[in-house]
Amino acid sequence: MLRSLQTCLKIHSRYGAYRLASNATEEQQQFVSVSEISGVREIMLNHPKTLNSLSMDMMTALQDAMIKDVDDINLRCIVLSAKGKMWSAGHNLKELQGNQEIQERVFQKLTDIISTIQKIPVPVIAKVNGYAAAAGCQLVASCDMLVCSDKSMFSTPGASVGVFCSTPGIAISRIMPRPKAAYMLLTGLPIGGEEAYIAGLATKVVPEAELDDEIDRITCAIKSKSRAVISFGKKFFYQQLGMPLNKAYEQGKTKMCDNLKLADSQEGIQSFIEKRPPKWNHEN
Amino acid sequence: MLRSLQTCLKIHSRYGAYRLASNATEEQQQFVSVSEISGVREIMLNHPKTLNSLSMDMMTALQDAMIKDVDDINLRCIVLSAKGKMWSAGHNLKELQGNQEIQERVFQKLTDIISTIQKIPVPVIAKVNGYAAAAGCQLVASCDMLVCSDKSMFSTPGASVGVFCSTPGIAISRIMPRPKAAYMLLTGLPIGGEEAYIAGLATKVVPEAELDDEIDRITCAIKSKSRAVISFGKKFFYQQLGMPLNKAYEQGKTKMCDNLKLADSQEGIQSFIEKRPPKWNHEN
Amino acid sequence: MLRSLQTCLKIHSRYGAYRLASNATEEQQQFVSVSEISGVREIMLNHPKTLNSLSMDMMTALQDAMIKDVDDINLRCIVLSAKGKMWSAGHNLKELQGNQEIQERVFQKLTDIISTIQKIPVPVIAKVNGYAAAAGCQLVASCDMLVCSDKSMFSTPGASVGVFCSTPGIAISRIMPRPKAAYMLLTGLPIGGEEAYIAGLATKVVPEAELDDEIDRITCAIKSKSRAVISFGKKFFYQQLGMPLNKAYEQGKTKMCDNLKLADSQEGIQSFIEKRPPKWNHEN
Repeated sequence: MLRSLQTCLKIHSRYGAYRLASNATEEQQQFVSVSEISGVREIMLNHPKTLNSLSMDMMTALQDAMIKDVDDINLRCIVLSAKGKMWSAGHNLKELQGNQEIQERVFQKLTDIISTIQKIPVPVIAKVNGYAAAAGCQLVASCDMLVCSDKSMFSTPGASVGVFCSTPGIAISRIMPRPKAAYMLLTGLPIGGEEAYIAGLATKVVPEAELDDEIDRITCAIKSKSRAVISFGKKFFYQQLGMPLNKAYEQGKTKMCDNLKLADSQEGIQSFIEKRPPKWNHEN
Repeated sequence: MLRSLQTCLKIHSRYGAYRLASNATEEQQQFVSVSEISGVREIMLNHPKTLNSLSMDMMTALQDAMIKDVDDINLRCIVLSAKGKMWSAGHNLKELQGNQEIQERVFQKLTDIISTIQKIPVPVIAKVNGYAAAAGCQLVASCDMLVCSDKSMFSTPGASVGVFCSTPGIAISRIMPRPKAAYMLLTGLPIGGEEAYIAGLATKVVPEAELDDEIDRITCAIKSKSRAVISFGKKFFYQQLGMPLNKAYEQGKTKMCDNLKLADSQEGIQSFIEKRPPKWNHEN
Repeated sequence: MLRSLQTCLKIHSRYGAYRLASNATEEQQQFVSVSEISGVREIMLNHPKTLNSLSMDMMTALQDAMIKDVDDINLRCIVLSAKGKMWSAGHNLKELQGNQEIQERVFQKLTDIISTIQKIPVPVIAKVNGYAAAAGCQLVASCDMLVCSDKSMFSTPGASVGVFCSTPGIAISRIMPRPKAAYMLLTGLPIGGEEAYIAGLATKVVPEAELDDEIDRITCAIKSKSRAVISFGKKFFYQQLGMPLNKAYEQGKTKMCDNLKLADSQEGIQSFIEKRPPKWNHEN
């Protein structure tokens, strides 16, 4: 679990904004369970008694677990799951009763986590088999993709307790059709896994018994590729999202050429032409 | 039906742009039927003999019915429906044969109504059990949400009479996938309720016999919340839609903190912690 | 097949960027089969032995076939199809092994084709009954609409050979929900026709046996309208996509008025009022 100073500095220089985050206490670390098997890190929200609410402790633990050794080339993807039928109930309401400084810190922390998800060099997959509400819904919507069981539920019911889900609305209105996002926000009513799939929130919806297999299928597909290429591609994917079409294509052309200069790119094409499996080095 | 000068001024200061609109004549008022039961105002397009076309008279009546007493805290949501199987056939073609000044006034009026829908402090729900065409399709697509029966139809067939549905295209291309919007605009062919649901145009699609219940479910959910909080949240929802992600989250943080300062927000959280129903005052 | 100097100049002035493209050699022309029946030009990728890969030869042939006589008012729409079960495998990997100048030319060529699709004055419909991969997926996603059989497949698997589908990602992430596009790009796994329909990539999905009928239904609907009006509307459709809502409506108002000045617009409205079929002249 130790991280060498060198790696640390590397992370800090690349992910400067995370510096303050990567220091979860031992007590905080207990909010999540982390396992890492064959390149797949599963981070499980593990505080059912608080309904996996995104308290500062929980968020600190989560952020820490996500960025730990993130430049280790053996890490190939992150699965974000939760223990219990409540995937997450959202922010901790008691913390929102604090003064404005505390409130701002709470909201900023989740924004940082969402920013982290986009910046870390491996795919982050939300695995949902339960109820993701409010900021919990925002979090799963902000993963690179979201795979859920047909038993899952999603809602943004903050207005029911007087706190409109304005920040979750930012996440879901960039994925779902605008009137569907408005429905969730204005009524607070939940939608199920199938409905979330049709609305675009869920990338895949499967029967509960097949959820693990679906996740395996996805992580195996990611692992069969070069980490360097996935990392390169993920970064530009988020960059181009907000660009006008012509600017995106202008930059895309350059990125494709840069991609082709990667050692793993040359190996990939060569192996394809030679009809043999590629031997990735996974290094940028 | 009278509005006190004070309320009037209040509306005018907040909704300055509506001033000219709120003076439908008695004759114009007959184009819509308005009922208000227990906080839910239903505005029904009621001119089947013109296929509920959005003539200047119809639009003036509609705009007027929407903004009337909009700051009355007893008003909690607006349902926009239509009498007859033609929900609306769109603009009145005869008015489009007028000079350019008249044409501009027609298009501007509908733009004003769409802007009004976004600005009024309660949710506006389109209830469709029929055929919404051209500007009629634009209107329902521009409500906060759209609930329809599976018998409903939607189309943008203006090109069939030589008038491409360019302004309806603005509305639908911001909700539906771009190639689906292009299909509707370039072919003019209708899509049904189920297809509209999958495309994101319809928020919910239900059998005709269940449409009223579905609307009730939605309006009840809205009414159980604080009007002040819904109003606050709706306003920011539209503001953030066009922002880059990081700017939206930066402003979202501030908005969440502002939300928490509302009396109804503090009541909401407190009641939740005390496990009792909230007592909203609904005041901003 | 000859084009008069006058028409040529007309195309060049309107489509200046295409000048270099419209000179496919006879050998290149064999990469596509072109037929034109009653206003519908079908361009079929016809090089199954290279899996219809988008080599420079193929792209030159395609671009040339698309812009040929594009201002002829008898041309009413273009259907882009492919021979064989591999609709297109994407770029030619051997060409991507060239130097950067060659690579840039390859990527720029497809960007030019996509730009052409948006600019040519008639609708371009992708007809897919097979597997569209990588740049092939980008191409079909960039047509005005995409109609496919339920046997079709779509993927962006470039990372499997070390070349992340960054430019295809630009196309699909502007149509599909962001996490769905990320799934396709990061896993490279294919999605079927039904899944593509729900995700918004496919405008229509039908059984294989009904694909021709569905295309006919669409092209007939387009042909029943004025070419001038469709051309006018298509142009503004793409212009307004990137605009903020209020700017789009401001310009939309002007465009509607301009549309009403077209001879075919006046004829369309007049014929509707007189309850007779319109007689289009199709001229701008």
